[in-house]
Amino acid sequence: MTSSAPTPAYRRLSVEERRSQLLDAALGLFAHRAPEDVSLDDVAEAAGVSRPLVYRYFPGGKQQLYEAALRSAADELRHCFDEPREGPLLSRLGRALDRYLAFVDQHDAGFSALLQGGSVVGTSRTTAIVDGVRRAAAEHILRHLDATDPGPRLRMTVRVWITAVEAASLIWLDEGKQPPLDELRDWLVDQFAAVLTATAARDPQTAALVHALAGDV
Amino acid sequence: MTSSAPTPAYRRLSVEERRSQLLDAALGLFAHRAPEDVSLDDVAEAAGVSRPLVYRYFPGGKQQLYEAALRSAADELRHCFDEPREGPLLSRLGRALDRYLAFVDQHDAGFSALLQGGSVVGTSRTTAIVDGVRRAAAEHILRHLDATDPGPRLRMTVRVWITAVEAASLIWLDEGKQPPLDELRDWLVDQFAAVLTATAARDPQTAALVHALAGDV
Repeated sequence: MTSSAPTPAYRRLSVEERRSQLLDAALGLFAHRAPEDVSLDDVAEAAGVSRPLVYRYFPGGKQQLYEAALRSAADELRHCFDEPREGPLLSRLGRALDRYLAFVDQHDAGFSALLQGGSVVGTSRTTAIVDGVRRAAAEHILRHLDATDPGPRLRMTVRVWITAVEAASLIWLDEGKQPPLDELRDWLVDQFAAVLTATAARDPQTAALVHALAGDV
Repeated sequence: MTSSAPTPAYRRLSVEERRSQLLDAALGLFAHRAPEDVSLDDVAEAAGVSRPLVYRYFPGGKQQLYEAALRSAADELRHCFDEPREGPLLSRLGRALDRYLAFVDQHDAGFSALLQGGSVVGTSRTTAIVDGVRRAAAEHILRHLDATDPGPRLRMTVRVWITAVEAASLIWLDEGKQPPLDELRDWLVDQFAAVLTATAARDPQTAALVHALAGDV
C-alpha cells in the first residue's frame, strides 16, 4: 500500500523499494518470455521508469537482472515453507504446498523460465540459487518431521520428493494447469506419505517417523 | 556426410567410428570437468588426434561438441529402457534401472554436467534433448504397463517418478555413491510401486493397473 499518488517514474522510492519494483516488473516479463529475451529496456518500459535508472540498478545487465529476479523468487519460495509446527503434519504440508502452488500459478511461464535449466543465462551461480531453495525446503520438512539427525535414506526420500513437487508443477503448467490446484496438492501430499512409507520398509528411522505420523492424523 | 576420407595420416576409421571416438573422449572429459571448461584442443589431446581433425568434425566448436556428446549420451540412456515385455513388471523395471544406474556410475560427474541445467552451454536445444530422454522413458514404462490410453494422473505419476530417478541419481553421486547401487535400484523400484499405488487411490485407470500388477509378481 502506498500513500502517494501513482506517478511511478517520479515518485521518490527508497533504493530497496525501487529495486523491488524493478524486480516485480522483470518477474512479470519472465512470465511471458524466456529470460534471455528480456532486456533492461523492456523492464524500464514495464516499470514506467527511465532506461538509465534501470541500468543504474543493474549495471551488470541482463545477467545481473536475471540473478536478482531469481533470488527474489527464491526468497518468496522459501517463505512458502514457513509453517508453524502445530497440528497434523500432512495438513501443514498441504498448507505449504498451497502457497508454493499459488506462486507457480501466479508466475506460470516465469516459474518455468526461472527454475528450469537450459537457459542461456543459466550459470552455476543460478543453479546454486535454485538448489538453495530445494535444500531449504528439505530442511523445513525434516524439522517438521522432528528428524534431528536424518539418515541418508530419509534425506534422500525428502529431497527426491521435493524435486517431484517441482517436476509436477512444471508438468501442471505444461498441461494447461490441469488438474485443479487442490487436486494437485492432495496428490502431492499422498505421494509424500507413500514415498515415506515405502522408505520405512527398509529404514528403521523412517519407520519410526511414519509410525508417529500415523498417530498424528 | 562427406565423401572424402578424413584422416589418411591416422589409423583409418570410418567417419562414424571417428566421430564416436571423439565423443567418447569428450564424455570422458565431461566426467571430470564442466562442459564449458572442455575445449576442442582437450578432446584432440585425449583422443590422441590432431587438433584440425577435431575442428573438422565439430566446426561449430564447443557448443556443437557438447550437443553431440549430449545426443550420444541420450541415445545410450534411451537404450537402457529397451527391455523385453516378459516376466514380472517390477523385475523389468529393475533391469532397466540397473542399466541406467550403470551409466550414471560410469559417467559420474559427466552425467551431472550433461543432464543438469545451469551450464553456460545449456540452451533450449540441449534442454529438448534431455526432455526427449525423459519422454522416451515415460513412453517405455507406459507401454510396459499396457496403458494404451494413459490418463493425465497416470502420465503425471510416471513422468514425476522419472524425474525422481534422475534426482536420486544426482544425489547419489553427490553423496559419494552411497548407498550401494543395488540398494538404490531396489529403493527406486519400491518408490515406483508406492507412487503408483498412491495414485490408484484417486484414479480408476491406475487402480486397474495396480491390480493387474499385484497378480503379476
